This record gives sequence, structure tokens and C-alpha cells, in this order.
Amino acid sequence: MPNPESRLQELGLTLPAPPAAAGAYVPAVRTGNLLYLAGTLPMRDGKIVSLGKVGREIDLGQAAEAAKLCTLNALANAKAALGSLDKITRVVMVNGFVNGIDGFSDSPKVLNGASEFLLQIFGESGKHARAAVSVNGLPLGASVEVQIVLEVRD
Amino acid sequence: MPNPESRLQELGLTLPAPPAAAGAYVPAVRTGNLLYLAGTLPMRDGKIVSLGKVGREIDLGQAAEAAKLCTLNALANAKAALGSLDKITRVVMVNGFVNGIDGFSDSPKVLNGASEFLLQIFGESGKHARAAVSVNGLPLGASVEVQIVLEVRD
Amino acid sequence: MPNPESRLQELGLTLPAPPAAAGAYVPAVRTGNLLYLAGTLPMRDGKIVSLGKVGREIDLGQAAEAAKLCTLNALANAKAALGSLDKITRVVMVNGFVNGIDGFSDSPKVLNGASEFLLQIFGESGKHARAAVSVNGLPLGASVEVQIVLEVRD
Repeated sequence: MPNPESRLQELGLTLPAPPAAAGAYVPAVRTGNLLYLAGTLPMRDGKIVSLGKVGREIDLGQAAEAAKLCTLNALANAKAALGSLDKITRVVMVNGFVNGIDGFSDSPKVLNGASEFLLQIFGESGKHARAAVSVNGLPLGASVEVQIVLEVRD
Repeated sequence: MPNPESRLQELGLTLPAPPAAAGAYVPAVRTGNLLYLAGTLPMRDGKIVSLGKVGREIDLGQAAEAAKLCTLNALANAKAALGSLDKITRVVMVNGFVNGIDGFSDSPKVLNGASEFLLQIFGESGKHARAAVSVNGLPLGASVEVQIVLEVRD
Repeated sequence: MPNPESRLQELGLTLPAPPAAAGAYVPAVRTGNLLYLAGTLPMRDGKIVSLGKVGREIDLGQAAEAAKLCTLNALANAKAALGSLDKITRVVMVNGFVNGIDGFSDSPKVLNGASEFLLQIFGESGKHARAAVSVNGLPLGASVEVQIVLEVRD
């Protein structure tokens, strides 16, 4: 398995600048060997690029792409906190929130956009536990929000 | 206090086979002495047995039963990861999501189905912190989802 | 930086009695150096003081106040568990749930009521990661719920 940053490169992806926080919090907090990342949104160049309700304005494929973009932003935050993605020893937990229409039941398909991306980047170490739900609203009207807990080393 | 698996037996319950993951994630990840379990649904023999909105298709008693069944599936995942429920030293946190009608305010009563079950099985070690909310949709249309963090030993 | 309890005093605030649990759970569980707090509500003297949907009955300023009150209750639980708020070495994570109208997109502004309060009380150690979402219902009809993970020492 090549290192995570080489994998990103192979996939033609570049880590963006860490996204601006949407409020009075920080992008990442380390405690022991855990790195808690803040929830991230499908943001590119400071703008939410996937806005609205999944199941109405946003279809499943678009939402899965948005979940992947949330995750890319989460990794940008992790890199800023750790110096290198090589310090990530395991993706522990992904909490996924979909801005769905009432009764939306396909949050797993949406969050697979995040999960499959993590597996591509981290291989075995990318295998994580997950909880996915649909909520009635997300910050700035985003379609998806992803919150990740990582295990890290010095 | 008898061990957790004897308690299950005394209650006439059998751990099911661990439920199939609803997506590209794994049922449990251990980091240090914490075991993060994936969100689990009221699933029996591979089928969701409590479908729909609490407060409309599903009443409070049925939803509390569903929360208990989610928890039984979570314990099946924990056993698969640990070998034995004896390795659980504390139930740390329960995150409970109810697929409620808009304005649903009884998520604590629903989640008590999970919490009381954990107390029955683990006694003092089963006492956990909890957050319960109502969401507008859950995977596969399930009525309840439960996500648990455990403290474990070797 | 004065200690957290002096800071509360300077702000004219008193820690309330720890709020009654809304169900079969406990207010705080420590595992290693982490203290998981249960979700707390905008409760004063045993009564929810901010009831209803944000964006309808409750405006943004009131909701931010409610988020602060949730946090004050969380700190009351932390003090009961730890003996003193001095034992808190870092606020790690804040999970914020707003009882919003469908499509509510201002959960960050609401949760800033919690986050800014934590910064006032703990300074640098109060800087936390955060995820904020809007949900369709909260326990007892509360407008906001806040769930916090702390790093603590003996």
C-alpha cells in the first residue's frame, strides 16, 4: 500500500486548503492517540458546491460525490493538524449526516461516497465503523456533512 | 453479577449472527481500550422488523422494542470483534436516533429500550452516557438506530 | 487564565445542580482520560426553558442562549463527575443538535452559543472540534441539545 498522499495523487486529487470553520470551533483536536475532526461540508474554494435536500435538489450520485468532497476536506484538516496523513494509523469512526427529504432512507448509499474514498486512500487502515442518518437541515444548506474520528501516531 | 452472556440466556435471548453492514464500513473498530460500534438497526434474520416513523406507523412501545433489538445487534457485533462480551468493561456512550415524525419529543422513552437492556445485561458496567434525538430518516427506513462506544480489555 | 470556576463567577454565572437525566442513563462516563457527557438540554430548575422549533417559536439569538444553557448544564454534570472543573484539560468535541424547521441551515450560529461560552470559560483549552446539525425533534421538545466529550486528568 502506498502512502495516503501518494494515493491521492494517483487518484488525481489534491488536498485543498483546510476549509474555514463555520463557527467558533477548531478543525481538529487531538487527545491521546485520537484525532477528533470537526464536521466538514462539501466545500470547494470556500463555497458549498452541493446545496439542498437529497431526494429533491440533489440525487444519490451527487450526494455520494458530496460525501467524498466532505471527506477530502476532513483529510485537509487532518493534514493541517498532523503535518502528514502518514500519521493516521486507522480511520475509527465516520458519522454521516444527510440533508434528506422527510423519510429519506438511503443515507448508507450517500455515505458510501465517503467510506469508499477512505478505503481507496488508506486501504485496510481505512476500514471504519459508521453511523449514517438523514437530518432535516445542515450548516449553510449543505447536502451532506461528515464527521470523522481518527487514530493517529506521533 | 453473572457474566453478560449468561444474563442474555437468563432473559431467553440469543445473540444473533452479526448483521450485514448496510454499506462500505465495518461493524466495529478498536482503538486503545475503546471499541466503536457501527450504528445498528432493528434487524432480524437480515430484515428490518420495525419500519417507518415513530409517532405514525410505530408507537412508543414498539419503538422501545426496536431500540432493544438494535442493541442486541450491536452486542452481536461486539462479540464478533472481541470473542466474548466478558471483555466489555464499561458501556461508555449510546447515541440514539429515532426516525420520528416532525417535532417528535419522546426519543428518551424510545432509547430507554436500549438503555434498560444494557443495564440488565451489564449491571453497573452498563451505565452509560447518552444522547437521543429524532431524525427525519434512517437507513432502510428503520424506526430506530443505535450507535454505541464501549470500553474493553484484552 | 483564571480557573474555570472563577471565570464562571466573573461572568455572574453559577453552576446549577446537575440536571435530572431524561432516561435510563447517567450524566457522565469516564474512560481513560476521556469524559463522555450525556446530551444536555436548556433546562433550569428542572424545566426546559427553551421549547419548540428554531426558525418558528425560537429565534437565532434565543437558540444561541439555549445552547449556552445546555453547556452550563453539561458543566454541572462534569463537575459532579470530576469534583472540580479544574480537572478538565481540554474540551475535545461538541456535538450540537438544533430542533430546527425543515431545511434549517443556521445550526452553526446556534451552536456558537455553546462554543463561545466554552472559550470564555476555558480559554485555549476550550477550543474544540464540533459538528452541528438540525434535527426534526429533541427530547421534551427542547430547542437545542449539546453533547460534549472532554479530556480530563486526575
